[in-house]
Amino acid sequence: MAQTVPQAKPGWKTIQVGRLHEFVRRALLRCGVSEVDAGQVADVLTASDLRGVESHGVARLEGFYVDNILSGMIDPKASPTVVRETATSLALDANNGLGHPAGVKAMTRTIEKALESSVCLTTVRNSNHYGIAAYYSMMALEHGLIGISSTNSMRWAAPTFGKIPLNGTSPISVAIPAKDEEPFVLDMATTTVALGKLEIAKRKGEPLRTGWAIDIDGNPTNDPDEGMKGSILPLGGFGTENGGHKGYGLGLLVDILCGVLAGGHFGSQHPAKTEWRKPRDVGHFFGAFRIDGFRALDEFRATMDRELRRFKESKPEEGQTRVYVAGEPEFEKARRHGRDGVTLDPVVCASLESVAKKLEIEPPAWSV
Amino acid sequence: MAQTVPQAKPGWKTIQVGRLHEFVRRALLRCGVSEVDAGQVADVLTASDLRGVESHGVARLEGFYVDNILSGMIDPKASPTVVRETATSLALDANNGLGHPAGVKAMTRTIEKALESSVCLTTVRNSNHYGIAAYYSMMALEHGLIGISSTNSMRWAAPTFGKIPLNGTSPISVAIPAKDEEPFVLDMATTTVALGKLEIAKRKGEPLRTGWAIDIDGNPTNDPDEGMKGSILPLGGFGTENGGHKGYGLGLLVDILCGVLAGGHFGSQHPAKTEWRKPRDVGHFFGAFRIDGFRALDEFRATMDRELRRFKESKPEEGQTRVYVAGEPEFEKARRHGRDGVTLDPVVCASLESVAKKLEIEPPAWSV
Repeated sequence: MAQTVPQAKPGWKTIQVGRLHEFVRRALLRCGVSEVDAGQVADVLTASDLRGVESHGVARLEGFYVDNILSGMIDPKASPTVVRETATSLALDANNGLGHPAGVKAMTRTIEKALESSVCLTTVRNSNHYGIAAYYSMMALEHGLIGISSTNSMRWAAPTFGKIPLNGTSPISVAIPAKDEEPFVLDMATTTVALGKLEIAKRKGEPLRTGWAIDIDGNPTNDPDEGMKGSILPLGGFGTENGGHKGYGLGLLVDILCGVLAGGHFGSQHPAKTEWRKPRDVGHFFGAFRIDGFRALDEFRATMDRELRRFKESKPEEGQTRVYVAGEPEFEKARRHGRDGVTLDPVVCASLESVAKKLEIEPPAWSV
Repeated sequence: MAQTVPQAKPGWKTIQVGRLHEFVRRALLRCGVSEVDAGQVADVLTASDLRGVESHGVARLEGFYVDNILSGMIDPKASPTVVRETATSLALDANNGLGHPAGVKAMTRTIEKALESSVCLTTVRNSNHYGIAAYYSMMALEHGLIGISSTNSMRWAAPTFGKIPLNGTSPISVAIPAKDEEPFVLDMATTTVALGKLEIAKRKGEPLRTGWAIDIDGNPTNDPDEGMKGSILPLGGFGTENGGHKGYGLGLLVDILCGVLAGGHFGSQHPAKTEWRKPRDVGHFFGAFRIDGFRALDEFRATMDRELRRFKESKPEEGQTRVYVAGEPEFEKARRHGRDGVTLDPVVCASLESVAKKLEIEPPAWSV
């Protein structure tokens, strides 16, 4: 199959993933983050860009992490402490540190404990934005475990029949190993879309699709500005007729596990969308469990291949060429970006240059 | 608040829940089901009608259970056996018995094991349709545990970009205790709607809402007949623009846990919608976990009340009077139906009378 060579677009720049990683690491070291933690943040952010989830990668380095460390909102030296622990459960306090190292440490312990006790569930409170949920669930894969990851966040989404945002985009990720096929990796916001889609529509001057957002009075809107002032809608859209109450239910479930169970902020305690600099007290929920508690791992892996192939080889509808399974598009992008580098849009490039200037470090080593 | 007195509609009949339970129990005893198992099936079916989920209650007694026992498709005397067991996991084989007793027995053991080991996950293979998912997740509530329940089923739903049904409605239920508030009880199909909504539209001669179904070529359709010949759509609807791939991902997740992990049928192995009498090998997935692994149960319950109230007391959009939380409408219906009895539509009444005739037992003791 012919590969697309990345085209130079005005203002866009390409960078090899290793170099992007190195830039993120250096920036965080300069902010007072430890060697280990800076490496973990760089791992998660570059994994996001590698997988094509540009919204959650280095695009957020400046606004979500560097600026919040410099302003004192996030403690760059904090390390998670254990609140409660049993053989199969763990409750951590991230002590207002960066979300990524807290997530990596929490999931590492979750995996160790699951390997020992078949299953482990873990909460983290008092944390910050942790990037893509799938990074952590996927950590379980190399151990032949099923991994779970979820987080709450700022509130953007209104409940069904409501008009005040009380939920975040509340992502849920589950990663399940296969044998020769790529693993199943679900990583989904429980809202119809994330905020980024509204921003893109606004930039392009396009209307929002019906079901994405409501205005401040709770009426469906196709106007990006009205939607951004109002709320995004749960998966299933407006009202209950297309199942909006299901997406809302999933979002509330995430907030209960990550907020109420973890012992952090929940519901209206989360910062509203005008409160970017309010401390977050973000909570995460992780899980891992052994497959051989139910059937032999080899047998499971082989059966997973058959299951995934049945979907992938299923007949596409008119106008489509393939049926995908969860995670497949991201694995394809990761292979391409690993080889060709990551191409970042002008806004993100400028933001990274701004980080370099702010922290007086070398700018990113762009390829193009 | 004034209560609505049930109105007599032509052909509709009302019955007290205890009497409905007794009828179901007698019917199943007559089919060769044991006292204990018949009671458990009656518990689950009447709980469904009590909660207002008419589609999953006694409406299915004849077609899903009695007829399939009489034809030899379901073994009325089967009892689940243990395939694998650890302190925190359990894999059962239902031996082609009824799904409800298998589910009740599986969830009972899941709860016992979770109380001992903090958490337990359980699979069941070679089972049959188990009714409402929430019945089993809610069993955890009285023990102060969080309960999980899920099942696969016949295939009705096409994957995103696909046109062949490969997934069931794949419900997920999670039940979480509160203190003075009713518990949070999510019980949702991972499709936009269940098949029942298409049937209702057809009976009423109304078009389907966009996002409910596709025809046999994979094109969106508003025609109930075309939709019923085609496939129902995952939560999020057609394509990816409103998040249809998320509902599809959740549906596939359910099929992996209940089919691949449990060791039963999965994907295209499930009977298609023309294959009502093909043995099902339905799989279930259950879970329960202790809250005090993360924080004190009393503290959690009180915080749950605050979380749920923040949503319930949130400002409704124009034209709505309230914001609900998951499970709330069902608890309200259960209180009303417990007091006033359950009112069944003419088709269901005729089906129960037909069961009585077929099995030569007394018909249901209708109130009206």
